[in-house]
Amino acid sequence: MRFTSQTSSDGVTEQLFALPFAFGEIPGVLWTPDGDAGTRPLILMGHGGGQHKKAPGIVARARRFAAECGFAVVAVDAPGHGDRPRSEEHDRIIAEIRTCAQTGGELTPLIAGFHTLLTGQTVPEWRAVLDAVQELDHVGAGPVGYWGMSLGCGLGVPFIAAEPRVRAAVLGLNGAETSAEAAAQITVPVEFLVQWDDEMVPRAASLALFDVFASAEKTLHANPGKHGEIPAFELDSTLRFFARHLG
Amino acid sequence: MRFTSQTSSDGVTEQLFALPFAFGEIPGVLWTPDGDAGTRPLILMGHGGGQHKKAPGIVARARRFAAECGFAVVAVDAPGHGDRPRSEEHDRIIAEIRTCAQTGGELTPLIAGFHTLLTGQTVPEWRAVLDAVQELDHVGAGPVGYWGMSLGCGLGVPFIAAEPRVRAAVLGLNGAETSAEAAAQITVPVEFLVQWDDEMVPRAASLALFDVFASAEKTLHANPGKHGEIPAFELDSTLRFFARHLG
Repeated sequence: MRFTSQTSSDGVTEQLFALPFAFGEIPGVLWTPDGDAGTRPLILMGHGGGQHKKAPGIVARARRFAAECGFAVVAVDAPGHGDRPRSEEHDRIIAEIRTCAQTGGELTPLIAGFHTLLTGQTVPEWRAVLDAVQELDHVGAGPVGYWGMSLGCGLGVPFIAAEPRVRAAVLGLNGAETSAEAAAQITVPVEFLVQWDDEMVPRAASLALFDVFASAEKTLHANPGKHGEIPAFELDSTLRFFARHLG
Repeated sequence: MRFTSQTSSDGVTEQLFALPFAFGEIPGVLWTPDGDAGTRPLILMGHGGGQHKKAPGIVARARRFAAECGFAVVAVDAPGHGDRPRSEEHDRIIAEIRTCAQTGGELTPLIAGFHTLLTGQTVPEWRAVLDAVQELDHVGAGPVGYWGMSLGCGLGVPFIAAEPRVRAAVLGLNGAETSAEAAAQITVPVEFLVQWDDEMVPRAASLALFDVFASAEKTLHANPGKHGEIPAFELDSTLRFFARHLG
């Protein structure tokens, strides 16, 4: 794990890193409260499709997790996103998704196919990132949570199902098509966000994914609005959810 | 408005009252923080079917609204419940609902019929209660919220649609059958609770009622479990919801 930069503002330290791994270096970012060493809860954040590890929605949430809860937070670029190279197959699928979204076609099978393509790579990558980050003095092997919407949910579900260190997850904006089988193996507490007027994920597919989680504690929060329009008060709820289960 | 008893514990004053009205006296209970005069937010609480104004789920929530938020809280017995007389028609419908629940029949039309029977009476009753309580020095004409599950939701929806003083509502455990038309007239913020495995209200009917509220801010919280098994953390959410909209 190689750190390439470190900055601090408003009590939160941000470190960019690159982690060598089988499919090439994984570029990532780690946020921690300034100055504290010692073990703390860790949140892994999976960004949405077309976004990257420092997308505004990721940074804003990560800084609140660190500043208000004292958590460490890590985000990495998914394959084909951010600072990572895109394969020809990535390019082809992303172009198909864009065209389909513009022409009002059936998005679900395209998105499901893209998630399936990436998952074989991202599950071992997240495990490698978790191994590396938990060895740091200012993170340590504390309880782990996962946050991921949309692509970050699609890639997160198989990872959480496979990784016993993850103890709680906030997921959403994704349907049952790709990940129902893995979701049925998840037993940790889940807070699941649905946008009631989501133009990319059919409402029934979202409800079906919530239905399949095997968790004794799972809670669905649905709000009006489109795919990208999660209301601000849900972040307050996310903070309390993680504080309750990891704090 | 005639007060019949007053007690205080843990910083909360509880006053029983009887309010003369067209259909006979309305028995009620008012909770307020000890000792403070002056205008404050007021929560009206509608109990579930077969319950009453001092059912444990009402009292526990009311005391937290008063103690933690400084709100006034009022609950009354619905017609045919608690200290109020039951008509022969009440007896007949309640017996039908019980038999149907035991034999696994179709509950929805019976429950809808019961709600419709009571609503013509309860909308003017709630208005009379609100008028009377807001004249008290230790309540005043502050912002008003409504909380009601199950029967309390079925009777609350037409009341909220008709009463502009209600500015926010926590509702749930009820479907679209009785109250869709009134729900479509509601524009205030709504937090709506669904029990995912509700044995009395079909899931689709609950989701349909949430769908029809005209509120720009409405949020659905669904949790696993049966009709009476709302998880404890939802009360924390309810407190924050009312504090955000009435505080």
